[in-house]
Amino acid sequence: MKNVERTIKSDKVYQGKIINLRIDTVELPDQKYSKREIIEHPGAVAVVPIAEDNKIVMVKQFRKAVEDCLLEVPAGKLEIGEEPLDCAKRELLEETGYKSDNLEYLFKFYTSPGFCNEEISVFVAKDLIKDVAQPDEDEYIEIEKYGIDELVEKISKEEIKDAKTITCILYIKNLLK
Amino acid sequence: MKNVERTIKSDKVYQGKIINLRIDTVELPDQKYSKREIIEHPGAVAVVPIAEDNKIVMVKQFRKAVEDCLLEVPAGKLEIGEEPLDCAKRELLEETGYKSDNLEYLFKFYTSPGFCNEEISVFVAKDLIKDVAQPDEDEYIEIEKYGIDELVEKISKEEIKDAKTITCILYIKNLLK
Repeated sequence: MKNVERTIKSDKVYQGKIINLRIDTVELPDQKYSKREIIEHPGAVAVVPIAEDNKIVMVKQFRKAVEDCLLEVPAGKLEIGEEPLDCAKRELLEETGYKSDNLEYLFKFYTSPGFCNEEISVFVAKDLIKDVAQPDEDEYIEIEKYGIDELVEKISKEEIKDAKTITCILYIKNLLK
Repeated sequence: MKNVERTIKSDKVYQGKIINLRIDTVELPDQKYSKREIIEHPGAVAVVPIAEDNKIVMVKQFRKAVEDCLLEVPAGKLEIGEEPLDCAKRELLEETGYKSDNLEYLFKFYTSPGFCNEEISVFVAKDLIKDVAQPDEDEYIEIEKYGIDELVEKISKEEIKDAKTITCILYIKNLLK
């Protein structure tokens, strides 16, 4: 496919704690120009932690952007220079209080490629060892455990509303060997 | 869950064509303050168009934010005051050239609730009638058709990298009656 959009100009609008915003002026295949609003994100990981009883460890937290408490798989953004696998181990411990040295990479995806470069790498974690959760200072997280079929039912009832979580759960249901 | 974050202050940083950016200062459950960077998005729809041969009509387009051509389900953002069903019919025609009066609502989800309020409502479209595609002036779109199992395989091979598309395809595979 040849319709690559060449960047003519790139203006930084905002540089923040988690995201930056820039406006790119691009040249289209017909030589016309257009503007693209782009959110820069450092990337993130999601972890599907599978406990000994085969239940999946989920987190529940308030999300200001949507003013709602959401049930999600543990996840978090990459620190500068951090490898996804290290980030996955760190976020698993911080958010759930479980340690694991048995993490396996599954797949990755873009959350909103129409305007944002966030990419999430997904890991499955097994052989969980209970330790102490270490949430960030401004994180308030509750832990809940569910079987995979309970989670699929929650998706069908719209009780799980987070795209990365739906993606992870249905991927595990369909494609995990 | 009681950890609602009360808004103390809300500052508009940017108002754009597709997205706005604001910074909320919130009061946490322990009375401390924190900042939340929030992208405001008008919301969107995604459509899974199922042709007579049971193949799914997909679109391929360049996505500047990730500098890549992605295979996706047809989708687009809501116009002001537009109902999701009307938006789904409009985007289906604009992007694929197919009309349908047989659209069924399936489910909805948030794409990135950690920092963005974008919600996508998903519809399945049947009884497709060939018409003429009407892409936006700055959209360059190719159409490809695949069976559901081909698409699931593309997910497993990371040839589909867009979260909404993975979500829609695996939902159809698992939960469409």
